[in-house]
Amino acid sequence: MELTMAAPPGDTAPTRSPTESGNQSAGDGLVRLGVDVPLRLDSGVELRDFPVAYQTYGRLNADKSNAILVCHALSGDQYLTGTHPVTGRPGWWETVVGPGKVLDTDRYFVLCVNVLGGCMGTAGPKEINPETGRPWGLGFPVITIADMVRAQALLLDHLGIETLFSVVGGSMGGMQVLQWLALYPERVFSAAPIATAAYHSAQNIAFHETGRQAITADPDWHQGDYISHDVIPHRGLAIARMIAHITYMSESSLHQKFGRKLQDREAVTYGFDADFQVESYLRHQGSTFVDRFDANSYLYITRAMDYFDLSEPHGGLLAEAFQGVTSRICVISFTTDWLYPTPESRHIVKALNASGANVSFAEIPSDFGHDAFLLKEPEFWKVLGGFIDGAAEHRGLRG
Amino acid sequence: MELTMAAPPGDTAPTRSPTESGNQSAGDGLVRLGVDVPLRLDSGVELRDFPVAYQTYGRLNADKSNAILVCHALSGDQYLTGTHPVTGRPGWWETVVGPGKVLDTDRYFVLCVNVLGGCMGTAGPKEINPETGRPWGLGFPVITIADMVRAQALLLDHLGIETLFSVVGGSMGGMQVLQWLALYPERVFSAAPIATAAYHSAQNIAFHETGRQAITADPDWHQGDYISHDVIPHRGLAIARMIAHITYMSESSLHQKFGRKLQDREAVTYGFDADFQVESYLRHQGSTFVDRFDANSYLYITRAMDYFDLSEPHGGLLAEAFQGVTSRICVISFTTDWLYPTPESRHIVKALNASGANVSFAEIPSDFGHDAFLLKEPEFWKVLGGFIDGAAEHRGLRG
Repeated sequence: MELTMAAPPGDTAPTRSPTESGNQSAGDGLVRLGVDVPLRLDSGVELRDFPVAYQTYGRLNADKSNAILVCHALSGDQYLTGTHPVTGRPGWWETVVGPGKVLDTDRYFVLCVNVLGGCMGTAGPKEINPETGRPWGLGFPVITIADMVRAQALLLDHLGIETLFSVVGGSMGGMQVLQWLALYPERVFSAAPIATAAYHSAQNIAFHETGRQAITADPDWHQGDYISHDVIPHRGLAIARMIAHITYMSESSLHQKFGRKLQDREAVTYGFDADFQVESYLRHQGSTFVDRFDANSYLYITRAMDYFDLSEPHGGLLAEAFQGVTSRICVISFTTDWLYPTPESRHIVKALNASGANVSFAEIPSDFGHDAFLLKEPEFWKVLGGFIDGAAEHRGLRG
Repeated sequence: MELTMAAPPGDTAPTRSPTESGNQSAGDGLVRLGVDVPLRLDSGVELRDFPVAYQTYGRLNADKSNAILVCHALSGDQYLTGTHPVTGRPGWWETVVGPGKVLDTDRYFVLCVNVLGGCMGTAGPKEINPETGRPWGLGFPVITIADMVRAQALLLDHLGIETLFSVVGGSMGGMQVLQWLALYPERVFSAAPIATAAYHSAQNIAFHETGRQAITADPDWHQGDYISHDVIPHRGLAIARMIAHITYMSESSLHQKFGRKLQDREAVTYGFDADFQVESYLRHQGSTFVDRFDANSYLYITRAMDYFDLSEPHGGLLAEAFQGVTSRICVISFTTDWLYPTPESRHIVKALNASGANVSFAEIPSDFGHDAFLLKEPEFWKVLGGFIDGAAEHRGLRG
């Protein structure tokens, strides 16, 4: 395995240990993993010599005991804070990650890895298949949440980090957190699964399926081979994003934000333009997403989420998935999240309790729906920050 | 105005009064309205000489006091019971309409009219524009719920029915019921708005907008002119239907019906086929819908629903929309309906109470979500039947 920094896949660059970083600002990481020993995926396919892209914030301490892995959600990536290289906008967890913030980069080494199947540098359908020299497209193997976590564990091996001080994530990030507890309980000192579930429900699958249908129905998708045709299935991907975006917001937040307000007009036009602000907003959400996300990645990552069911290998007994977990865990949900509603979190808490884990639970009052973990929700920050501080004390990390 | 029976638009046939019907079975009705005086739509457009298709069940009594108008929902039509001429399946309210049933065709003359903008014979984008001799397509004027109701009122004028014994409908049908109360309170003896709302919320609009985007993104849509191209935007319409269908079911009904059960396989395939039953079911829902519904009608009818806000002409004061209402009214909602949840019905009840109307309210416990009014829900049948029976007694209709 080779570690490269800020270099395109396939290039090599001198390995730099994160402890050698001269400053606490963001570090670009790109490494090729599976070079000596391939990664065996849940599908049975072996992935060899594949790139993994990540970002680091803060410094790894001498005994490598202050690493926090943040796992990103479906439409997220490794850029937690600072200016995103593609969108030019702040990273997705600007509010939570940084000096003096909840995940304090003056104290912790915060790491975020683009997931397997993603489109920001880690192996996925957009990247080059080394065997063909062309983009993988649909030739990329279907991956699972467990595969994403196995790739992250390989990266930690590479970085010499044995144990994570904490692993934190919301939505699909929370699924990865739960999967970390199930796969590598001994490597996780503390964990915070946020706004998530231990399995994807029929309704969750249904919404994803409509999004996938929208993408694959777009003639510019070309059976996944659109890169060769020098086009992007932008209409299909935008529709998929619009559908998903509705599920990320609560009815009350949509009502408060838009209600039935009209867009730059005094009266309805009796036509099919975006008369209502909510229509205009959704169209904007769809069209901007296309500029930063790969349509095939959207297929692969939603599929990984739909396949997620932590209890499945244990005959439906979730507690058995958590055997051996001694980590300190804080499960967090939001009152108006109808995508992964609070009962899903209670289900996780119950299973963790049954397995004898050290678990606390907080349901945060919020109007923001599922996206609350990404938005200005001080009560959430307080709970997560309190949990991290308490865990740091137990870990013996200096304040 | 001419009344024709079972004849294509444009044809003429001898006028037959519904009281002359020799049997109580279904009657096909097709009439051209707006011939002498055009219908002025909310958009300002005047619609002339347009077809209205309807079905009747049972017999109109001598004093024409036993007519029940059933208003259909977005994807419904005038075929309440018996074999549907297109699908070959039972009508959409087979469980509720018929001899001895809740809407007893041995006692009542039940009438259902294909809405304006629809695609089962009433004027809509699929029908021929008499001025051009070609299908209207997007040249059809955008219509509103009030326009639909005005066309129904013209039909009642034509049939010589001054007052409806009752007007009943679920979902968009319920919106028409509310609109009847607002427009023609003196013509409504009793009314049952079911699983509905007095306005379309931001979330409702958002879901519809994604469906419209899916249709118009389909290259086979051809800017609405697909009939000329001899194609159908079947992929886009199927996706629109899939999105909507999820909103018609409750999370619990999806869970109970499908959960994470696989479709004809023992294990996931690590591919993008419909591994899960819920995916297969949704794809089926989408593809069968295309066979019976017109894509442009879907655009027009969803737009009419999005425009619906009964309080808007009254500065947001819903009670003012119901001034002069003396009808007996029963508002019905379902516990798991998240599309038009119970608070929306309570909002209607409160406004009706404030306007001094005679209103009762029932929230029916159901796992079926929004679609409960279409499914086997005996508690709902009991409430609706009790209300109709009570109203019939007050109306002096013989049992």
